[in-house]
Amino acid sequence: MRGTPDGIALLADLYELTMAASYLESGMADRATFSLFIRKYPVCRSYFVAAGLEDFLEFAANFELAESDLAYLEQTGLFSDDFLDYLQKLRFTGDVVALAEGEIFFKDEPALEVSAPIIEAQVIETFAINAINFQSVIASKAARCVHAAAGRQLVDFSLRRTQGIDAGLKVARSSYIAGFAATSNVLAGKVYGIPVSGTMAHSYVSSFGSELEAFRAFARSFPERTVLLIDTYDTLAGARNAAAVGQEMAKNGYRLVGVRLDSGDIAALSQGVREILDQAGLTDAKIFASNSFDEHKIERTLRAGASIDAFGIGTRMGVSADAPYFDMAYKLVQYGERPIRKLSAGKINLAGEKQVFRTTGAGGRFAGDVIGTRDETIEGAEPLLEPVMKNGALTRKHPSLDEIRERFKERFSSLDETHKRLKDPRHYPVRVSPRLEALQEKTSPPVSMTSSVS
Amino acid sequence: MRGTPDGIALLADLYELTMAASYLESGMADRATFSLFIRKYPVCRSYFVAAGLEDFLEFAANFELAESDLAYLEQTGLFSDDFLDYLQKLRFTGDVVALAEGEIFFKDEPALEVSAPIIEAQVIETFAINAINFQSVIASKAARCVHAAAGRQLVDFSLRRTQGIDAGLKVARSSYIAGFAATSNVLAGKVYGIPVSGTMAHSYVSSFGSELEAFRAFARSFPERTVLLIDTYDTLAGARNAAAVGQEMAKNGYRLVGVRLDSGDIAALSQGVREILDQAGLTDAKIFASNSFDEHKIERTLRAGASIDAFGIGTRMGVSADAPYFDMAYKLVQYGERPIRKLSAGKINLAGEKQVFRTTGAGGRFAGDVIGTRDETIEGAEPLLEPVMKNGALTRKHPSLDEIRERFKERFSSLDETHKRLKDPRHYPVRVSPRLEALQEKTSPPVSMTSSVS
Repeated sequence: MRGTPDGIALLADLYELTMAASYLESGMADRATFSLFIRKYPVCRSYFVAAGLEDFLEFAANFELAESDLAYLEQTGLFSDDFLDYLQKLRFTGDVVALAEGEIFFKDEPALEVSAPIIEAQVIETFAINAINFQSVIASKAARCVHAAAGRQLVDFSLRRTQGIDAGLKVARSSYIAGFAATSNVLAGKVYGIPVSGTMAHSYVSSFGSELEAFRAFARSFPERTVLLIDTYDTLAGARNAAAVGQEMAKNGYRLVGVRLDSGDIAALSQGVREILDQAGLTDAKIFASNSFDEHKIERTLRAGASIDAFGIGTRMGVSADAPYFDMAYKLVQYGERPIRKLSAGKINLAGEKQVFRTTGAGGRFAGDVIGTRDETIEGAEPLLEPVMKNGALTRKHPSLDEIRERFKERFSSLDETHKRLKDPRHYPVRVSPRLEALQEKTSPPVSMTSSVS
Repeated sequence: MRGTPDGIALLADLYELTMAASYLESGMADRATFSLFIRKYPVCRSYFVAAGLEDFLEFAANFELAESDLAYLEQTGLFSDDFLDYLQKLRFTGDVVALAEGEIFFKDEPALEVSAPIIEAQVIETFAINAINFQSVIASKAARCVHAAAGRQLVDFSLRRTQGIDAGLKVARSSYIAGFAATSNVLAGKVYGIPVSGTMAHSYVSSFGSELEAFRAFARSFPERTVLLIDTYDTLAGARNAAAVGQEMAKNGYRLVGVRLDSGDIAALSQGVREILDQAGLTDAKIFASNSFDEHKIERTLRAGASIDAFGIGTRMGVSADAPYFDMAYKLVQYGERPIRKLSAGKINLAGEKQVFRTTGAGGRFAGDVIGTRDETIEGAEPLLEPVMKNGALTRKHPSLDEIRERFKERFSSLDETHKRLKDPRHYPVRVSPRLEALQEKTSPPVSMTSSVS
């Protein structure tokens, strides 16, 4: 399940193939550049975290239709034999520049630019958006949770309500990039090497004759990592039962790792639970909390004085409930020698091959970005788009997940707090370079079309 | 990619396995029943459409850990050799009753009940919720779109922004169940046999020297199914170019299928476009519309007098943007002879093995449901939960996708319009039978726990 499974070259909108067929027939084979970017900020957002590049690159590097794919396309009756022969041999031979996974970026900035013969650049469109949009959505949401938790550990609990299987894996990966400590998703642990975490559900507690009996059984089975879920019947009574079991464990030379709260007024309950644990001498037993947490509820709960050491973060992060997609587009910006702009109402994009430059201020703090042309240099600014694929081959090994996580951590620490506010964040300054601006002014819709309007 | 891919038995929260290990060690092996249901209606919702059962049943029927799964679990250091040996042999041998896919259901009603030795019923929890929650979320959202479109065709355009690959396939399937006519997702066409649809993107139009040139090239390549995207530069000018090409096609014995609008004030533009096409004699050319449509925008656009024959429905349906998850739970309701209720604040469930009964009124219209005990019968009411798995084996062939689609259509037509309103729908009456009520009253938290509270 890692990266690109076999047999997914057809994971594309049909129009990628109908356009390809028509390009082939019309002899349209020039090199095209497409730019992938986000058109606007969803609610409360003012930055994005790049993720999903590895999956896209694996897809592009291994692009090849299987025999069964070709047989399926043939039986649709849509395509000529010539085109099907062409598709059979089609591989991706283009170049890609991209933001590294874990990078912080902003609206209108290309996260990726693909340059290839137009058919090749077109057929990978759907997958490119699918991979990078979703993983960036989740990494961005998870970063907000990590920021709100102010140093407390977060664990991804979302698998049961992610939008499908693949999403479950990608959420574990993307939230780990953004600083989550672990995931409950065992397969993600196996596939990505992410630490796994989890203890018991209410059903476990209910299945025993009493809560105390359930707690004792679990402590016997996992003496080194017992976290007891204490809200099945009554949270404070559960805390007293947990404290009793913790004291029994201590007599046997073990330590109760902690308790978990999953319902009710968690800020108030956590204080009561802390008191019960402390009075039982279990001052180093931790309190975990779960139940519909997202960045806002984390902030609210901590502000109300909660005594919580770690959070389990489920559905609302795992589907990015308040912003389940970004308005991400993959637009043609150059065909052959011709820079191209699209002008549909409300959907304007920047023509030409581009670069994103970042300037920094005191202490390395991000001071503002400039979107320029690919070939310019801006004094003292760092170019962020790196070549990652050349002639269809990777130009470097994929960074490890821990390297990506480290990159995110370092970059995120350079983003000013005012941009990280959960509500009404200040927008980060992004401008267009004079040179890229001049290119836009030279780029108008094709003359022959304009004349046909009249 | 159909159903359950290999190697996903570990697609589970870690606590399913830690609980299993502790159940094994504690000799907890009684038969347990778990109930899957939705606790509340999300915004504007008043019914749900069941989907995802086939995937769950395939997962359960084929449950088996691979060697590499066991090796991974071993190296976590969490589990004993005894438990790993047990896991290696573990299969699902239980019974399942469920709502058929395509059925309409309501909050608190079990969509599924699983009865099996407790470890078996527990380890499939995460997958059960993942499969049925997401596919029901999408089928329910898609049903709302179909209802709003009042007979016009809808096509799933969401693949680029679905939450991952698996979601892309499941959205195509779930929206087809709810009455969508086709999908843009080519792989879904191959895997599920759903009709595929699609024509061209703005990039196609921009890559040619002029819009007219692009339209002519496409008509040459696909003379039988040309739909021209007319808003790359100016929608009405685009309509005039399309009309010119449509007239050229007619001279050659072909017919322009239609045009697509993807931006601007679609209601107003569609009227202008209709006029242009009609004046050119292209009265049977259809108008397709896309761009951020969901049920609300469909309704608004049609109410504004739009002349639209079909809609492409993308992201907002494909992620169910306003309700990207349901509050679906999988709760232990019986262990051995003991019915079980969970009482955590705000999270109460109905103990015991259950059945859902539907009563109908005039013309077969749904009149109200009763949640009863599994073994009761209610005069004149239809029991909805069907046995679908017995001792780990399917009790029937999976219905075909077209059969499921047909079932949805028939059932949905029996649901009163007042429950289908897009906003402020009337809630459908669901009550608990006296017999199930009596069982709840007999079911209190275990006595030994209650005493430990004091």
